[in-house]
Amino acid sequence: MANLEDAKVVASQELSNSKATWVKMERIKYLDPMGKERDWEMASRKSRAAKSDVDGVGIIAIIESSKGPLVILQKQFRPPLQAICIEMPAGLLDPNESVESCALRELREETGYIGKVTYRSPLMFNDPGFTNTNMYLVFVSVDMKDERNQNPVPELEDNEFIETFTVPLEELSQNLERLSHEGYKLDARLQSIASGIQLSRQFGVR
Amino acid sequence: MANLEDAKVVASQELSNSKATWVKMERIKYLDPMGKERDWEMASRKSRAAKSDVDGVGIIAIIESSKGPLVILQKQFRPPLQAICIEMPAGLLDPNESVESCALRELREETGYIGKVTYRSPLMFNDPGFTNTNMYLVFVSVDMKDERNQNPVPELEDNEFIETFTVPLEELSQNLERLSHEGYKLDARLQSIASGIQLSRQFGVR
Repeated sequence: MANLEDAKVVASQELSNSKATWVKMERIKYLDPMGKERDWEMASRKSRAAKSDVDGVGIIAIIESSKGPLVILQKQFRPPLQAICIEMPAGLLDPNESVESCALRELREETGYIGKVTYRSPLMFNDPGFTNTNMYLVFVSVDMKDERNQNPVPELEDNEFIETFTVPLEELSQNLERLSHEGYKLDARLQSIASGIQLSRQFGVR
Repeated sequence: MANLEDAKVVASQELSNSKATWVKMERIKYLDPMGKERDWEMASRKSRAAKSDVDGVGIIAIIESSKGPLVILQKQFRPPLQAICIEMPAGLLDPNESVESCALRELREETGYIGKVTYRSPLMFNDPGFTNTNMYLVFVSVDMKDERNQNPVPELEDNEFIETFTVPLEELSQNLERLSHEGYKLDARLQSIASGIQLSRQFGVR
């Protein structure tokens, strides 16, 4: 079996817009709120479908076990980080695909689990000062009484190497801290969800 | 007073690495976990300080009021989104600046509030398939008994136009949904925190 630890970056070089397939850079001219013209530099994805305003989805898939809710997480080597990242299942929208279909498809392909959408967040932007890349968070419930979830088998593409695991939702934050200390990199959306749970606990939010 | 609604993008053009000051693109060669050589395209910031592995911080600043905890939020025109974005206070690290100092400085400059750091998250990556940009989440407590917090005065730079407001932590998620419906764009880290609070509530996490 492939070992994620064996993946590594061996070289990198400057990339121009004309040679790039997936990413691009732009200089924007904008009028600030006082009417003064200013410049801004940004990067974006070229993969967004024509006429779409959405790049992708992130999936909070929850298994309700007898010991409490478990959240499905992934380890994946990410070349931009030169490291293995801890993430939620996620993916880019296919042309004409709905957000909900995309979430269920990506969950099935990446983890093997069949789920049901319970909530979709508003559209959210990953790093608004730097890029327009965006995604919806989709909450998905995974019913372990469904026979198809007894032996989930991912259908990974030949360039995808993903390890799936679960942690108790209640202990998400502690688990991410531990994984970060062990050298894994953390996805910001996932760590922010963990921080939200932490804030809830700290301030007794009901 | 400047009206954020008046800001707008008037033009954009392709930007090359050699003409960019703040952003860059690279093609990476990496070995996948099976030892096969593959390509990946990525964007990143040029502003990261030499020898640093960190771009910036996001600040969850909490005012403990008699009516419960309030979270400090911002409206800011973001050229990459061509829209006003709802965000937490945030900023990039100055060279040799600590994460905690940066958080307290940015909070003071952007909102006028003086705070105390109560927690720092592990480092987290904004969009790991696309870029290596990253940040720490820093929780900051704002004591309203501190006289300096009675009339907070931001110290904005001449290219910064930021409106500060607060919402009850408990109602963060509903407020973000409403603002999104009103046409504001949402920062993903902030919306993910709101989703974490929502998950806590839904699953009765203690």
